[in-house]
Amino acid sequence: MELIYVIDIIGTFAFAISGALVASDKKLDLFGVAIIAFVTAVGGGMLRDVLINAHPINWIGDLNYLYTIFAAVVFTFLFKSKIAHLSKTMFLFDTIGISVFTLLGLKKGLSFNLHPIIALIMGMISAVFGGVLRDVLTNKIPLIFEKEIYASACLAGGVTYLSLNYFNVSENIIFVLAASVIVIIRVIAVKFHLQLPKIKDDLFTKK
Amino acid sequence: MELIYVIDIIGTFAFAISGALVASDKKLDLFGVAIIAFVTAVGGGMLRDVLINAHPINWIGDLNYLYTIFAAVVFTFLFKSKIAHLSKTMFLFDTIGISVFTLLGLKKGLSFNLHPIIALIMGMISAVFGGVLRDVLTNKIPLIFEKEIYASACLAGGVTYLSLNYFNVSENIIFVLAASVIVIIRVIAVKFHLQLPKIKDDLFTKK
Amino acid sequence: MELIYVIDIIGTFAFAISGALVASDKKLDLFGVAIIAFVTAVGGGMLRDVLINAHPINWIGDLNYLYTIFAAVVFTFLFKSKIAHLSKTMFLFDTIGISVFTLLGLKKGLSFNLHPIIALIMGMISAVFGGVLRDVLTNKIPLIFEKEIYASACLAGGVTYLSLNYFNVSENIIFVLAASVIVIIRVIAVKFHLQLPKIKDDLFTKK
Repeated sequence: MELIYVIDIIGTFAFAISGALVASDKKLDLFGVAIIAFVTAVGGGMLRDVLINAHPINWIGDLNYLYTIFAAVVFTFLFKSKIAHLSKTMFLFDTIGISVFTLLGLKKGLSFNLHPIIALIMGMISAVFGGVLRDVLTNKIPLIFEKEIYASACLAGGVTYLSLNYFNVSENIIFVLAASVIVIIRVIAVKFHLQLPKIKDDLFTKK
Repeated sequence: MELIYVIDIIGTFAFAISGALVASDKKLDLFGVAIIAFVTAVGGGMLRDVLINAHPINWIGDLNYLYTIFAAVVFTFLFKSKIAHLSKTMFLFDTIGISVFTLLGLKKGLSFNLHPIIALIMGMISAVFGGVLRDVLTNKIPLIFEKEIYASACLAGGVTYLSLNYFNVSENIIFVLAASVIVIIRVIAVKFHLQLPKIKDDLFTKK
Repeated sequence: MELIYVIDIIGTFAFAISGALVASDKKLDLFGVAIIAFVTAVGGGMLRDVLINAHPINWIGDLNYLYTIFAAVVFTFLFKSKIAHLSKTMFLFDTIGISVFTLLGLKKGLSFNLHPIIALIMGMISAVFGGVLRDVLTNKIPLIFEKEIYASACLAGGVTYLSLNYFNVSENIIFVLAASVIVIIRVIAVKFHLQLPKIKDDLFTKK
């Protein structure tokens, strides 16, 4: 599936830029920016591969990830002020990247004969953990834990993928449908500021 | 040893609740709470298994951990205000969990033919690292490094286990004795506010 | 190469002391200090070995690392106030340690038949990641990302090593030359307060 590989690389590029932007806002030097861009882009897949013992892990087995991240750092260095005006494009790339990362991680988990629930978690780790690492390394509470419906979108997309897998539908169609679920939920969530509930009060707290 | 498995699950439940409580105090959303509960409960065993190359790692090889964590998150969501009144029960569960995690980790290390010192460290990683991850992800200095005699209790229990292993004592008795050492030290330490010394001054500092 | 093993141990000792000093400044207890010293000293090699699937990983396969770290913690506990006056000696040890860690990590990567670029990154991870872990666990933005030319020095030394490898030069001479490049760049950078540029502005920002 060549197209998915291309989207995987685009997603890597988008994630690397998002890491580079956060790092440069924190006034890290060029090297720090490159490291944060790197962990944001490949951190999720790296953790997944270490956990399921899939060696060589993602960026060790395929140098194109490193080249893509390098290009993203140079791109950010040259065009930082311009990128600010492209926030919608960036958001789109990022969202497509998330959806592809989720489904590729899930597929990899299934190909390692993991239980579907574990494969689903591997998909989510692939999509989410890079951003968590970015935030931990720049000393923030991971964004994902606070505001974004991001992880829930990945979960919904992964469940869609697994469910459709039981029916006699072509792999490609399932992939596109499940990816669309992730993209649509995230776009709607951001547009309408949807959030998950918090555990502030419980059923028995008096108002 | 069926009983130990049950206690392992109870310990996992207690750790997951402790993670969920910290996360909800930090106002994370439901998803963030679930992730923090997850890493608190299985983070220690996960790191141990990755370091000693024991695949499939803990929660990948046994889905009961995930189900337990899920139950703990739902439980916390429903009964948060009630749990506050159960702090002694929680502390007991947590302490039993720590002692079992330490000894199961140590045993796993020995079963992988690691040197006893390394196996001891694996026991401690199993018991302690989940809490460290919880604190790093919620952007706090890990509690374990600052106040608790927690890790020392695990160390003492592990040394007890290894020492008794040289004598002709039944495995079950050794396990119970070593676990008791951990529980007793921790209870006494918390009751009397015992702390390890800090490196503020040294032998040559003038008072 | 016996000498390199000795320098590896000296570097481990220096890294462990640097970790212990940071941890005791943060008022961690003795146990916390030991853990931070441990991760600072072996964290880089540990991550490298997990990523390239080199089991048993560094400190599990060779107990001398643990003994060295233990000695460093005791040493720091006894002589903290004295060490402050030895900052130049410590800086020298630390710098030598970095250069040896970089090159040993790179060599290990090559011996695992990794692509030279990946091996180079493994060298840098070996040298740098222990300090990153130290800073994350003590809740600071990793120093390496902000001020030090540290990682660039490792990069330059690694590239020197790889380049000379193409010529018919003795392994030992290459090692010494590449290590010298790292030491010299770091000493010069610290002496003259050199820094990498930051991505504050870009080519198109009006001054």
